[in-house]
Amino acid sequence: MSHEEEDTLLATALQKFVDVDGSLGRKIIPYAHDAFHVREARQYDSMSAKDRLDVIALSLTPNERAALESFVLLCSCGTLETTSFFEFLHWWALCGYTYQGCMDSLISYKFKGGQSSFAIRFFKEALATGKLSYVFNSPVKSITDVGDKVTLTTRDGRQYTGARLVSTIPLNVLNSISFSPQLDPLRMAAANTGHVNQCVKVHAEISNKDMRSWTGISYPFNKLTYAIGDGTTPAGNTHIVCFGGFNNHMHPEEDVQETRKAVENMAPGNMDIKRLVFHNWSKDEFAKGAWFFSPPGLLSSSLDALRRRQGNVVFASSDWAIGWRSFIDGAIEEGTRAAMTVKEELQSSPTSRLRL
Amino acid sequence: MSHEEEDTLLATALQKFVDVDGSLGRKIIPYAHDAFHVREARQYDSMSAKDRLDVIALSLTPNERAALESFVLLCSCGTLETTSFFEFLHWWALCGYTYQGCMDSLISYKFKGGQSSFAIRFFKEALATGKLSYVFNSPVKSITDVGDKVTLTTRDGRQYTGARLVSTIPLNVLNSISFSPQLDPLRMAAANTGHVNQCVKVHAEISNKDMRSWTGISYPFNKLTYAIGDGTTPAGNTHIVCFGGFNNHMHPEEDVQETRKAVENMAPGNMDIKRLVFHNWSKDEFAKGAWFFSPPGLLSSSLDALRRRQGNVVFASSDWAIGWRSFIDGAIEEGTRAAMTVKEELQSSPTSRLRL
Repeated sequence: MSHEEEDTLLATALQKFVDVDGSLGRKIIPYAHDAFHVREARQYDSMSAKDRLDVIALSLTPNERAALESFVLLCSCGTLETTSFFEFLHWWALCGYTYQGCMDSLISYKFKGGQSSFAIRFFKEALATGKLSYVFNSPVKSITDVGDKVTLTTRDGRQYTGARLVSTIPLNVLNSISFSPQLDPLRMAAANTGHVNQCVKVHAEISNKDMRSWTGISYPFNKLTYAIGDGTTPAGNTHIVCFGGFNNHMHPEEDVQETRKAVENMAPGNMDIKRLVFHNWSKDEFAKGAWFFSPPGLLSSSLDALRRRQGNVVFASSDWAIGWRSFIDGAIEEGTRAAMTVKEELQSSPTSRLRL
Repeated sequence: MSHEEEDTLLATALQKFVDVDGSLGRKIIPYAHDAFHVREARQYDSMSAKDRLDVIALSLTPNERAALESFVLLCSCGTLETTSFFEFLHWWALCGYTYQGCMDSLISYKFKGGQSSFAIRFFKEALATGKLSYVFNSPVKSITDVGDKVTLTTRDGRQYTGARLVSTIPLNVLNSISFSPQLDPLRMAAANTGHVNQCVKVHAEISNKDMRSWTGISYPFNKLTYAIGDGTTPAGNTHIVCFGGFNNHMHPEEDVQETRKAVENMAPGNMDIKRLVFHNWSKDEFAKGAWFFSPPGLLSSSLDALRRRQGNVVFASSDWAIGWRSFIDGAIEEGTRAAMTVKEELQSSPTSRLRL
């Protein structure tokens, strides 16, 4: 199938999937940054992607269904049963209610120097103030909030104390840390449920130059499902990014031959692999998964609780952003909110208003 | 005509207007924040809106043409001859290349407390640092940049000196201030040309409750062209915002009866006016016009020059933002760029990198 035929196929299938209101989702989620604004939107959080597929099954051709399922799984990297249909509608609204918008917002653009180059600039800006102290590689054991200060203890016994603590601990890691006083029951329940994204992302350098703008789907039998050509590496090879998820999960470092095979299966005969690069986010103790994607029920029951502060602890993570939840934009939303909260509380009000 | 018929009429006409590339402008301006990325886009900056209308004239019905002209004039508030077609294409790209996107980005949303409530929050945030000194109502006479400092002199003779100066003086005001050394010739020429937006914005409170979501066009004979119902005032009246521009200009305070008549003409028989509110931005010495809109030729010749610093003076205005030029978003773009420039230059690098 050509690129354009695939595009049309997926666009058509997506429209059938999201059209719950005769307006391609625009009536049910009119404000992407206030996704529960319309009360009726909540019902879609008790549906999974699978439930919605069952509703529209008769209207989909087999090819449309395969393209649609693989795209939904590319977003959630869970299973169709564990993917909240509401959260998919929310992504769709964020992307302007069009397939083109999804491509523009989710796929087409990247930082020249990679996502890390962006993160490093935030870090350097903070460092340049001369007021930043930091430690890395220090897993947190406990957080104790007593009176007007919070104390954090690392697993190796170091302690740090402050007037406020901004916790950026991701949802899937939250229940590995001991809080005193305990986290409120709703937040704790959400942390125990966790989000469902167990993305397997494998980067391959291959020699075939024709593959640099290619997109491929291999679904449902392969361990990797979706792959895109992503330009040329400094060595002149083609960079391919392959995605898999929990629906057919693997740990790429456990059996590299299996990983290699899964990459080759994305385009049999066209994958002369020079190098494979991956990081297993599922096993990463600081992440326990990839970007947030919610199972049915999680957001409608717990989003407000996850966003609430608890005493001197303010929780900031893209995992509970209201707009670009799961994206770095959501991390900026929530980081800004937390910083503003703490700044307003701790900044002494100027004694006199200066006027020249 | 019903609201929906008008929508369709304008959407169809707009598509004809912007479709210079068979892709509704997407090929000619693929990146709204880098609008000259495709070299061929420059040619459209030597065309006016009128030139483009002439090209597509045979494809437009009279109603389509009237709706299209009034919408273009609502954007530029100049005349069709003084409106850069390129800049209109740039707005279209910013709005996602759709009529719906234009409505979403340009018309539908506003701050509950008005734009001022937003601006005041920036001011209060700056004030809360305890490091802000400020004066208002002090027209600037001259800016002198010598060696490592810049001195600003007000018309009443006060002087302020600093290591850097961030000039937010709008394009249309720039040539009323004396710079030493002189502004570079390209910037000066652009300032002398100026932008073309002489919007006349008149707010009316009327008693008719049915008008709160109404949209009306009265073109080309009325002094006001486009009006929208904008909700209900605290007094229970309907708030109507009417727009006019340079194509049929008036100064609303000069003849209030004429202004009143122009408002009434927007919906004869339905405008029981309780109150009129307006500010004449054309005569405002700190603005000399409304939001930036460029005449043909200005951007392709001068945008780079307008964005360039000059010695210790950094120029920051939405008037030369590369993305949301003319909008408050563009002011934030440029304010951030200027602040970052100055901060990086003046902030002493931390002598030691703190690590706990």
